[in-house]
Amino acid sequence: MNKVLILGAGQLARMMELAGTPLNLDVKALDVLSNKVVQPLAPEYICGDLETGIKNADVITAEFEHVAHNILAKCERSGKLYPTSNAIKIGGDRRLEKALLESCNAANAKHYFVNDKVDFDKAIEHLSLPIIFKTALEGYDGKGQWRLKSAADAEAVWQDMADFLTASKTTVKQGIVAEQMVPFDREVSLVGVRRVNGDVAVYPLTENHHTDGILSVSLAAPVNAQLQKQAGTVFKALSDKLNYVGVMAIEFFQVGNQLLVNEIAPRVHNSGHWTQQGADTCQFENHLRAICDLPLGSTALIRPTAMVNIIGEDTVPDAVLAIPSATIHWYNKVKRAGRKMGHINVSGNNELQLAERLQRLADILCKQAFPDLSGFAKSYIEKQS
Amino acid sequence: MNKVLILGAGQLARMMELAGTPLNLDVKALDVLSNKVVQPLAPEYICGDLETGIKNADVITAEFEHVAHNILAKCERSGKLYPTSNAIKIGGDRRLEKALLESCNAANAKHYFVNDKVDFDKAIEHLSLPIIFKTALEGYDGKGQWRLKSAADAEAVWQDMADFLTASKTTVKQGIVAEQMVPFDREVSLVGVRRVNGDVAVYPLTENHHTDGILSVSLAAPVNAQLQKQAGTVFKALSDKLNYVGVMAIEFFQVGNQLLVNEIAPRVHNSGHWTQQGADTCQFENHLRAICDLPLGSTALIRPTAMVNIIGEDTVPDAVLAIPSATIHWYNKVKRAGRKMGHINVSGNNELQLAERLQRLADILCKQAFPDLSGFAKSYIEKQS
Repeated sequence: MNKVLILGAGQLARMMELAGTPLNLDVKALDVLSNKVVQPLAPEYICGDLETGIKNADVITAEFEHVAHNILAKCERSGKLYPTSNAIKIGGDRRLEKALLESCNAANAKHYFVNDKVDFDKAIEHLSLPIIFKTALEGYDGKGQWRLKSAADAEAVWQDMADFLTASKTTVKQGIVAEQMVPFDREVSLVGVRRVNGDVAVYPLTENHHTDGILSVSLAAPVNAQLQKQAGTVFKALSDKLNYVGVMAIEFFQVGNQLLVNEIAPRVHNSGHWTQQGADTCQFENHLRAICDLPLGSTALIRPTAMVNIIGEDTVPDAVLAIPSATIHWYNKVKRAGRKMGHINVSGNNELQLAERLQRLADILCKQAFPDLSGFAKSYIEKQS
Repeated sequence: MNKVLILGAGQLARMMELAGTPLNLDVKALDVLSNKVVQPLAPEYICGDLETGIKNADVITAEFEHVAHNILAKCERSGKLYPTSNAIKIGGDRRLEKALLESCNAANAKHYFVNDKVDFDKAIEHLSLPIIFKTALEGYDGKGQWRLKSAADAEAVWQDMADFLTASKTTVKQGIVAEQMVPFDREVSLVGVRRVNGDVAVYPLTENHHTDGILSVSLAAPVNAQLQKQAGTVFKALSDKLNYVGVMAIEFFQVGNQLLVNEIAPRVHNSGHWTQQGADTCQFENHLRAICDLPLGSTALIRPTAMVNIIGEDTVPDAVLAIPSATIHWYNKVKRAGRKMGHINVSGNNELQLAERLQRLADILCKQAFPDLSGFAKSYIEKQS
């Protein structure tokens, strides 16, 4: 039996244990708050400390990219860490991410690094408005971002960012990446997986919808072959360059027929949760297969499937369960506003059936907690006719 | 969060925890050997004894029908046991089972109860040869059975059974059920689920193949509507009669267009394991939904799916994982000849694709361990053309 240690004991580790157990993988996770190794599905069951965890593991991986660098270094020294700390760090630092994209000629938004007022002014000079400024480190779900739409606001935005940089207590020096905002048609992502021997498999491109900067709905359905190929080429280039092992997600802006990389997540990804019900092999199992050096599983779409995030709510009406194919995945987390608490996967034998089931779901769920779902379902139904 | 206690901590409890965790159900199991309550996925994690387990649980259920009657009685007194001890016992005693079938007018093989030589002679007089004699208690997977094909062997068979009855140390008095052997065309089973309010949902009829008395392959594909209706009617009658709550499986002999009940399992069932990948909602989740009084999930077939049992082997070639849709479910059990160690689910977008994938699986697996798979796959492919 392969023993897997995951850095981070949140929902992604939990879903990896659920996917790995049938394969007889022994999945443990490091709770980074307590620094204890636990069973992801029974976090009160403490199995030891990090050192023992590293010693006992056959392979080590991470469920998030903001793992403390000293922990990553320790794991890497054991020779068991997949992907490499380098790849994990790239997901946690937009400057490294941008450098990787440039080195692979992967199309992405025009950008500029900002560390001080001189850089800031240069960024405004070189980029057209509107510009989005993002912290290089630890920004996620729309946090740590500033938008500059009019030159008149530049001074105020800079002041706010300067205060932020001054207050920043990160170990690695914090910084800002200024990006020319892309007038995109939609946001899509590609979840893919790469094995040690270089085998790569990618899932169908997923269409993503955000509410207040947080992913709310992901939709997986038959996709445009040209876009799929474009995304696959980017995945191959980036993952080869990193000698990547495991699942990696790439978020794109689609502008006409072109995909621009928005960001990279060196891990299983929220926009891939639909694969639990909608793909031959789910992303969690494929990540584990890759890091345990087992054959990758088919990434084929079984049938059109959507994922709806449950944000800030710890209950949904039981009636959800009566919708055919609806599957609820709770994360067993304490309720907090804006927190990802779980998700619901829904499938249909065709896109119209999926759209109708999503409409039924939207009708049942609390409108305040799922503000955009009803509109999404309605427009999706209209697209089918 | 609903707290579920399962009597028995084997693979069925394990798969119930896997299915229940995403629903935020807290699933614990009683290891009947140690009499301790454990986490099915981490059996070394001991959570207390039976009394504490009963106290902490919201609902209690069983993963096998041979639970000691004093344990069932204790659980029933708590008011939390689903299904009832009566229903569970019926699955563990062929005499009760036959009585239930008769009371519901459910077609089944002609039979006779045997406790002594007088009964034995009467059975031979009333039933035509060949006759199969089955122990009333604790027989499973073809164990505890005698076949009488020729009258000349009667004395020897009786002597063997008489020795068995004398040696029997069961708490409930052991006995024999003599059954006229049915020249059936095939064996099928129906897995269904019933909720407290009487709602019933049944999965598509599954075709079952046995090797040496143990289930080897189950096949779920679009079925004959008349047979499906017939089976559904029997399920409704039996489950209503028992005021059943949870998943129950009914094994049938198909003779022409008629289904004769072979036996009943008051629990999730091996012939329903294909539902993990092949149905909208798997049998494990539906059992938990029913006992927790949640809406039943759709039992619709997603696509043709087969389950192949792994018997007596604790490893299969990695190449199995490269077959699209192939999913391995290991039970984390110590290897023993004839023991169910895990199963593999395989699906296809149509029956021909499924048949071809099964052939590929048969080609990879060890011929000795899966003696009948190749022949099954070949004849299944032929049927499609």
